[in-house]
Amino acid sequence: MSGWLQRRESVIVQTPGRGMLDLSGRVHEIVARSGVHEGLCSVFVHHTSASLILCENADPQVRRDLEAFASRLVPDGDRLFEHVEEGDDDMPAHVRTVLTHSSLTVPVADGRCDLGTWQGVYLWEHRHAAHRRRVTITVMGTGPTR
Amino acid sequence: MSGWLQRRESVIVQTPGRGMLDLSGRVHEIVARSGVHEGLCSVFVHHTSASLILCENADPQVRRDLEAFASRLVPDGDRLFEHVEEGDDDMPAHVRTVLTHSSLTVPVADGRCDLGTWQGVYLWEHRHAAHRRRVTITVMGTGPTR
Amino acid sequence: MSGWLQRRESVIVQTPGRGMLDLSGRVHEIVARSGVHEGLCSVFVHHTSASLILCENADPQVRRDLEAFASRLVPDGDRLFEHVEEGDDDMPAHVRTVLTHSSLTVPVADGRCDLGTWQGVYLWEHRHAAHRRRVTITVMGTGPTR
Repeated sequence: MSGWLQRRESVIVQTPGRGMLDLSGRVHEIVARSGVHEGLCSVFVHHTSASLILCENADPQVRRDLEAFASRLVPDGDRLFEHVEEGDDDMPAHVRTVLTHSSLTVPVADGRCDLGTWQGVYLWEHRHAAHRRRVTITVMGTGPTR
Repeated sequence: MSGWLQRRESVIVQTPGRGMLDLSGRVHEIVARSGVHEGLCSVFVHHTSASLILCENADPQVRRDLEAFASRLVPDGDRLFEHVEEGDDDMPAHVRTVLTHSSLTVPVADGRCDLGTWQGVYLWEHRHAAHRRRVTITVMGTGPTR
Repeated sequence: MSGWLQRRESVIVQTPGRGMLDLSGRVHEIVARSGVHEGLCSVFVHHTSASLILCENADPQVRRDLEAFASRLVPDGDRLFEHVEEGDDDMPAHVRTVLTHSSLTVPVADGRCDLGTWQGVYLWEHRHAAHRRRVTITVMGTGPTR
């Protein structure tokens, strides 16, 4: 039997403001570096106004439509919100984060992060201003059988 | 002390179109086969137009009401959406997936997947057409103490 | 190399009715007791009418605004719902649970649950009546290197 392995890496992502950034490449690299052959890969974002999603990775219009839907569902400047110190997009960013995901867990199979063909890991920045976001990828499982 | 164990199984689920399918039985079987006594069970769906939820498992009306709510919140054919190549339900399926879950993590206790009494694991097909969906269950943890 | 460790604890949380309760302190305590230095911490709620979120932990107005948003998005007594046996807030509680989270996974780094500065773990009770809710925290990973 092979041994148990674990690797944890944090990456800093500079966002240009509201929108989605593809993290799939970085996740795949860290899984490869981990040496884990079978196991789980966890992705976590350490903020409450940016989130993670698994999204269709072929047509960029899907992300634009998702953004349009979120903007309509949780409008900036909604009079409902009283927490407005940081601006019109402050409370909508918290709501959008809670309605999507702060952590994702993906299986690792045959040494690869086993995303579906059309699945990409995206960081979704919900604030209009540029931000530095910290994301931690943890890979845990067994190495290749020898 | 007992040893560490892991088991990963992928299942193909044939959906008859939009609606929910109970996967709880399959998850319980795979946890039992894993030999894991204490640990975690991860369920993952490899698609961006079908998702996973933990839902009330007693009254089927709950699932019908959830479906009615999702259909009202993210209407098929909404003029907001420009990604419509695959039909009126294409972009709504992506939105519904992002608003629900692609991965669920459930504790394993005393050799069982420790769902609450009223919790079932459901695959939610968001497309109207029948689809083949791949779901991976990964169980990780320690075996029984001897 | 150090050894692999795991700890699982269930806590019973008495909620006073609809609203959010901060579980961060309990999660930090259990991670500390686990002895895990690097790994993952999973939080799970065993119910379908209460959920978990990672939320801004500084200004209580954020939680009040989130509650106001959820109450508007999924109104109690909505005529759409037919599952009403337990009252006007029964089906909204299920919908709110599905739109938020039943499980959260947070990295453990340097022996601490590595939440962001402004992230707290909250149990969100969606029913108006007081309830006893069971939450399970599982910590898995490696101990300190000696």
